[in-house]
Amino acid sequence: MVSMDKLVALAKRRGFIFPSSEIYGGLNGCWDYGPLGVELKRNIKAAWWQDMIEHHDETVAPAGAPSAYAMVGLDAAILMNARVWEASGHVGGFADPMVDCRETRARYRADQLVVFRVVFDGEPVDMLFASPGEWGKATEDELIEPHKKRINALAKEHAGKAMRIEAVTGALEDDALRGRTLAPGASEPGSLTAPRAFNLMFKTHVGALEDASSVAYLRPETAQGIFVNFKNVLDTARVRLPFGIGQIGKAFRNEINPRNFTFRSREFEQMEIEFFCRPEEAPDWYRYWRDRRYQWYVSLGIRTENLELREHESSELAHYAAACADVEYKFPFGQSELEGIANRTDFDLKRHSEFSGKDLRYIDDLEPDPDKRRVLPYVIEPSAGADRATLAFLCDAYAEDEVGGEPRTVLRFHPRIAPVKVAVFPLVKKEGMPEAALDLYRRLKRRFSAFYDEKGAIGRRYRRQDEAGTPFCVTVDGDTLSDGTVTIRDRDTCVQTRIAADRVAEYLAERIEVA
Amino acid sequence: MVSMDKLVALAKRRGFIFPSSEIYGGLNGCWDYGPLGVELKRNIKAAWWQDMIEHHDETVAPAGAPSAYAMVGLDAAILMNARVWEASGHVGGFADPMVDCRETRARYRADQLVVFRVVFDGEPVDMLFASPGEWGKATEDELIEPHKKRINALAKEHAGKAMRIEAVTGALEDDALRGRTLAPGASEPGSLTAPRAFNLMFKTHVGALEDASSVAYLRPETAQGIFVNFKNVLDTARVRLPFGIGQIGKAFRNEINPRNFTFRSREFEQMEIEFFCRPEEAPDWYRYWRDRRYQWYVSLGIRTENLELREHESSELAHYAAACADVEYKFPFGQSELEGIANRTDFDLKRHSEFSGKDLRYIDDLEPDPDKRRVLPYVIEPSAGADRATLAFLCDAYAEDEVGGEPRTVLRFHPRIAPVKVAVFPLVKKEGMPEAALDLYRRLKRRFSAFYDEKGAIGRRYRRQDEAGTPFCVTVDGDTLSDGTVTIRDRDTCVQTRIAADRVAEYLAERIEVA
Repeated sequence: MVSMDKLVALAKRRGFIFPSSEIYGGLNGCWDYGPLGVELKRNIKAAWWQDMIEHHDETVAPAGAPSAYAMVGLDAAILMNARVWEASGHVGGFADPMVDCRETRARYRADQLVVFRVVFDGEPVDMLFASPGEWGKATEDELIEPHKKRINALAKEHAGKAMRIEAVTGALEDDALRGRTLAPGASEPGSLTAPRAFNLMFKTHVGALEDASSVAYLRPETAQGIFVNFKNVLDTARVRLPFGIGQIGKAFRNEINPRNFTFRSREFEQMEIEFFCRPEEAPDWYRYWRDRRYQWYVSLGIRTENLELREHESSELAHYAAACADVEYKFPFGQSELEGIANRTDFDLKRHSEFSGKDLRYIDDLEPDPDKRRVLPYVIEPSAGADRATLAFLCDAYAEDEVGGEPRTVLRFHPRIAPVKVAVFPLVKKEGMPEAALDLYRRLKRRFSAFYDEKGAIGRRYRRQDEAGTPFCVTVDGDTLSDGTVTIRDRDTCVQTRIAADRVAEYLAERIEVA
Repeated sequence: MVSMDKLVALAKRRGFIFPSSEIYGGLNGCWDYGPLGVELKRNIKAAWWQDMIEHHDETVAPAGAPSAYAMVGLDAAILMNARVWEASGHVGGFADPMVDCRETRARYRADQLVVFRVVFDGEPVDMLFASPGEWGKATEDELIEPHKKRINALAKEHAGKAMRIEAVTGALEDDALRGRTLAPGASEPGSLTAPRAFNLMFKTHVGALEDASSVAYLRPETAQGIFVNFKNVLDTARVRLPFGIGQIGKAFRNEINPRNFTFRSREFEQMEIEFFCRPEEAPDWYRYWRDRRYQWYVSLGIRTENLELREHESSELAHYAAACADVEYKFPFGQSELEGIANRTDFDLKRHSEFSGKDLRYIDDLEPDPDKRRVLPYVIEPSAGADRATLAFLCDAYAEDEVGGEPRTVLRFHPRIAPVKVAVFPLVKKEGMPEAALDLYRRLKRRFSAFYDEKGAIGRRYRRQDEAGTPFCVTVDGDTLSDGTVTIRDRDTCVQTRIAADRVAEYLAERIEVA
């Protein structure tokens, strides 16, 4: 499996992903998608939208589904009325336990704090605090790096004694830690506060005044935008239970410790469905969506050996959830969640009914039994991260192999999500040659994301496209002018097939749709 | 032309646009796109991306362009390092002149403040403040509505005298205003501060601490995300001058007075190109982009009589701009900017060079003259609003006409941007009928956004699709079962054409691509 260092370097070098505001030293937890990255992510989002919403056929039950169902889209604003987050529980509960260093005002997640004891001749002399770094797996040396100055001072003070620095875990339960200690980066002693809740929502003020009445939050999830529009959709879209509302959009969390490249970032994009159904049918729909969403990644080329559908233990479930499963990917930094599928019961609609005073029950006009006519639907939520999916597709596509005895780096993207579908190369410089290649390129470009390259040796041109993940390269050569054929080279097999130039578009269409 | 009231009502009723967080009373200046709206806006954004970036042919100069040029995409984060906004001038300068009421803390744009004098028997007794409402054209009655209580109290106090309430304009120049006055909604006297600058950026804090070092802003424009990545793109995308970087993304402005539906909102989406070229070529590229962008709206069906390309007077130009033009649309609330095209000179790259200390000059290896080899490019910026474009397409598409003596409301969207491309109706209930219609629907749905409707009279089904802007309706009738033909009805002409069911996909593809 590719190392994160290699992947990050490739992402930077080829213009997939850059640190945000890099010329100003970046902004921790924020990332920009470059020319190749934006196309990759757009294709992933488009595939999700097409497969889940746009091309969904509501007249027939898909395999494994209890019945047919409708799907509609939505695009809610990032800024919402602050009451939404009171109803959802985010204002009160969406928090991590944090400790502050009173001296430096540095803040650490209490459950991720690493504490070091500095010991001279077996006697503890001081303590140092650190948080795991960007990669989540910082070495001990990296973690104590900011404390070098202090450590040197201590070593000088205790010259002649044997120094040992030892990591302490679960240390916050130790009252001694709240005494005289040293905070990272400080040269003077500090102390830690007791852990307290730190809300992860970004707060701002909307309107002219900066007071409690104008507080607004950047949404920490897109789901609530769907719940608060449930009635609007019911009233306008002629949908009946069961049906789903899908949405792609940004959300924000003020993570104390963003890490693992784009995996845990402060700004991220979600692809979410809230699927509304009768309470008694929720367990069946939960199983359907769990399996369907797992299969979606497989259908776009993620290898099943790197993917796991992990059902949560009941002890792991959020208080509102009746069931939950994660689609997990074996990232280089460890197996981690790509998407969560949860049976959220009627928790969300019930809360919003209470807080808004609006009746959010669905009325089934066709139901003969008046007792069953009004129903507060249960919700199945498949919630995927677009950035996490992009990262997983990058990791899974990455390969190093040999072609003709030469090493190459290749991104084996599924053709549907590849940023560039086809590259066109004129092979030799001769009369009529670039024109023939340009002509083909121009015809393809109208329909596909295509790239034209006439620079450098053909081997180098292939390598460049391999690294960009381009599934097909077409070479226009001497024979093209005489018999109208070109060669199409497959990125993965490196097999070259000779076909009529006129058939290239059709050849690509077949493979991009079904490959 | 459609009135805003009608348009807003249709947008709500048919699920194009809802007020954000509506069940909680909304959030002023924020809007949600419903099932039809999200598809309309997605199609507009996709058309922009395809036409400007994805299908742009960099091997040939388009009509009117000085030369061929490359285009690449980008997707930068909304949260950026705060230094970006110091360099861009937004921290210092992006402000409106505001006055505060000391009493109520209400805040008004000084240049939009409306002041009323309350006069009894010709003698001024008090003053009232108000801001134009959501629609920008509030009546006098609406503006003084919040002051009713105070007015009644004054009327009682001055019983028997003749009361007159008169609007005062340019009133802030009047020193008397800063004296004893009454603020809106207050029942006690207040006073206004002198005007001062109010920054329009939404501010938040990133990371654990809420202090000056952690301040971040929601980007007030997407442009800077491109400028700070200029070098990253140069280093990774193998582009040469001239070339453009395009981006679609959200931006945020804390407008004091959001108004005109989605036209001036606090959260909005931009479709922006920053086009980099040699300084001496900038005037030619400016003219090219100005004309090209105007034509883009025309190509998607906006009527030229509702569109104006308005060149700015030199007195209107921003300090960094050498030229600027607006593409303006005749909205029901007045002719207003859809898109601005500006020659921003080298202002942005120069500022970011200074503030970041990075050399952002382009190096032209092919240039023989060493003095000309390093160049700080000029920038032409076509900056469009995706929400404004969506609103303009809605306004322009809206029509009321008569069909068979019955009035209808129809949205005449260009087929490329219509949320639903085709609806399929089985005409009569007989054996094999819904199956034939379903079969056709299912084949179409794989490729197009399609809608199946078997409910209600055929006329009602047409009306529903007319209001949604669906360009084609296919009816499957008795003849379909015998001869395999269907009728396709054109939304605008209402003409029905009989064709083979097998040819429907092809028929649609031709019209959606070229219509």
